[in-house]
Amino acid sequence: MTYTEKMLDAYPAEINIDHRQLASVIDALEACAQACTACADACLSEPADRLPMLSRCIRDNLDCAAICSTTAAVLSRHTGYDANLSRAQVQAAIQATKTCGDSCSEHSSRHEHCRICAEACRETERALKALMPQLEPTSATTGPPSQSAPQQQQPR
Amino acid sequence: MTYTEKMLDAYPAEINIDHRQLASVIDALEACAQACTACADACLSEPADRLPMLSRCIRDNLDCAAICSTTAAVLSRHTGYDANLSRAQVQAAIQATKTCGDSCSEHSSRHEHCRICAEACRETERALKALMPQLEPTSATTGPPSQSAPQQQQPR
Amino acid sequence: MTYTEKMLDAYPAEINIDHRQLASVIDALEACAQACTACADACLSEPADRLPMLSRCIRDNLDCAAICSTTAAVLSRHTGYDANLSRAQVQAAIQATKTCGDSCSEHSSRHEHCRICAEACRETERALKALMPQLEPTSATTGPPSQSAPQQQQPR
Amino acid sequence: MTYTEKMLDAYPAEINIDHRQLASVIDALEACAQACTACADACLSEPADRLPMLSRCIRDNLDCAAICSTTAAVLSRHTGYDANLSRAQVQAAIQATKTCGDSCSEHSSRHEHCRICAEACRETERALKALMPQLEPTSATTGPPSQSAPQQQQPR
Repeated sequence: MTYTEKMLDAYPAEINIDHRQLASVIDALEACAQACTACADACLSEPADRLPMLSRCIRDNLDCAAICSTTAAVLSRHTGYDANLSRAQVQAAIQATKTCGDSCSEHSSRHEHCRICAEACRETERALKALMPQLEPTSATTGPPSQSAPQQQQPR
Repeated sequence: MTYTEKMLDAYPAEINIDHRQLASVIDALEACAQACTACADACLSEPADRLPMLSRCIRDNLDCAAICSTTAAVLSRHTGYDANLSRAQVQAAIQATKTCGDSCSEHSSRHEHCRICAEACRETERALKALMPQLEPTSATTGPPSQSAPQQQQPR
Repeated sequence: MTYTEKMLDAYPAEINIDHRQLASVIDALEACAQACTACADACLSEPADRLPMLSRCIRDNLDCAAICSTTAAVLSRHTGYDANLSRAQVQAAIQATKTCGDSCSEHSSRHEHCRICAEACRETERALKALMPQLEPTSATTGPPSQSAPQQQQPR
Repeated sequence: MTYTEKMLDAYPAEINIDHRQLASVIDALEACAQACTACADACLSEPADRLPMLSRCIRDNLDCAAICSTTAAVLSRHTGYDANLSRAQVQAAIQATKTCGDSCSEHSSRHEHCRICAEACRETERALKALMPQLEPTSATTGPPSQSAPQQQQPR
């Protein structure tokens, strides 16, 4: 069990999403951010005749790393949960992993780091898409928004 | 003229958005991220009887700081521009500044730092909304996506 | 094997540090950053009578999260390696994990999230200290700094 | 007056550093981070025959951007101030701005974005060095560390 799941279990209020699923999404986002940071750097160390073909890939790596990292942080916070914000940021991460996964895939046969990074992007994109339906605000709400959203009930 | 605008002018290819407008959005995002980081910390130093009311505000500050900072970085990159990605991340930032602006506004009369931070959020939200129409892919495109998007033409 | 280690193995030049050790440091830093982000948020959801005692812990969590995350990124880059920079940032991370570990330890008996976070901080502090001697520039250098440092040889 | 300085003035406890100086350091760090992010991307859009010479510069830009941004956040927090942590992170930022300033300077005559970025790095390095003496713990302390450090007195 990763620290991520342990911390979800130790959160002092209810989180109305399956802890294991949420932890695996957060961990996927962080592994993807790490792969993208490493892939951007690996691209920079490719030989001079290869590097120019990789400039777009590097840019997409950098965006994807920053977006995945920010999204992991947003999904790690449950105090005053706002479904609209989580959904908008997850949507941006789905786009970032798709864009970067596409870029890296173009170079997978030539560069092992692009192949691995594309795999991390695709895996994270799938995990994010599977999470989206869980981030819907509940339909019947009686309290203020921060209390009726799926991830946060009343503090004990 | 800020470094942001100078750097846009020094970019070695065309950026098809007004440099001054884009620079002012990026600068607003960074000023907002800074205000949110400072507001979260100022809330933490409020007296014990005030702090519990500010926990949601702190959380929104932290999300808004991370999202604005990431969005500024995405908008500062023009190599291999992808309109879908920029738009999705800007959309998340619009939501983050709205959510955080609303949270801080609730405490504006009691806490000057919340009043100032709400102002930074509102200003950034307006700037982002004004930028959105400029991030549309151009309608008539002949080249591949990375060359037909508004922010990026062929490298010289 | 994590993506981190796979990416080190796929890097297109030599990295003169044991890949397994370096990967475990980077992974510890990211797990620690994640635990700190989650601990700050868990503290914010503690009851009103507990929250004021946790304000310093929250601040230390936020610093430690940002510093660990940045240090992981610095250690994930090997192009043009600069031992002085890596060492200075690792030193800052050693201090951040110590400070945060101390803060969280004070609340370990009352708050499980602080106990887990303190554990993540101590583990990361130990891993960073064990890495430091490996970041020394080699004594006998003939090339420019970027080529004589332990983490980077000539690109193949 | 920037939001940074306004937020320092609105902080609900004493900050024992001149607000204007501290604000100017934080603003310099954020302007430098922005310049570095933009310079890395501008380098990526340079022609194929120039790009390989810029790979180290891009790497230094990315480190410097992340480190400056993290350092700005650390210096923006005053709750439970820890002089050792601030000093260690500022030290890392001094090294990052020096390393990146040196890298960019090598390309200043060829690339305007490197010239501007080097200027931002040098300016920030100077501001950080001038701040260091202010981050010394006060010599005569009676309370616990968090109360005797220069940046933080007792909350009002």
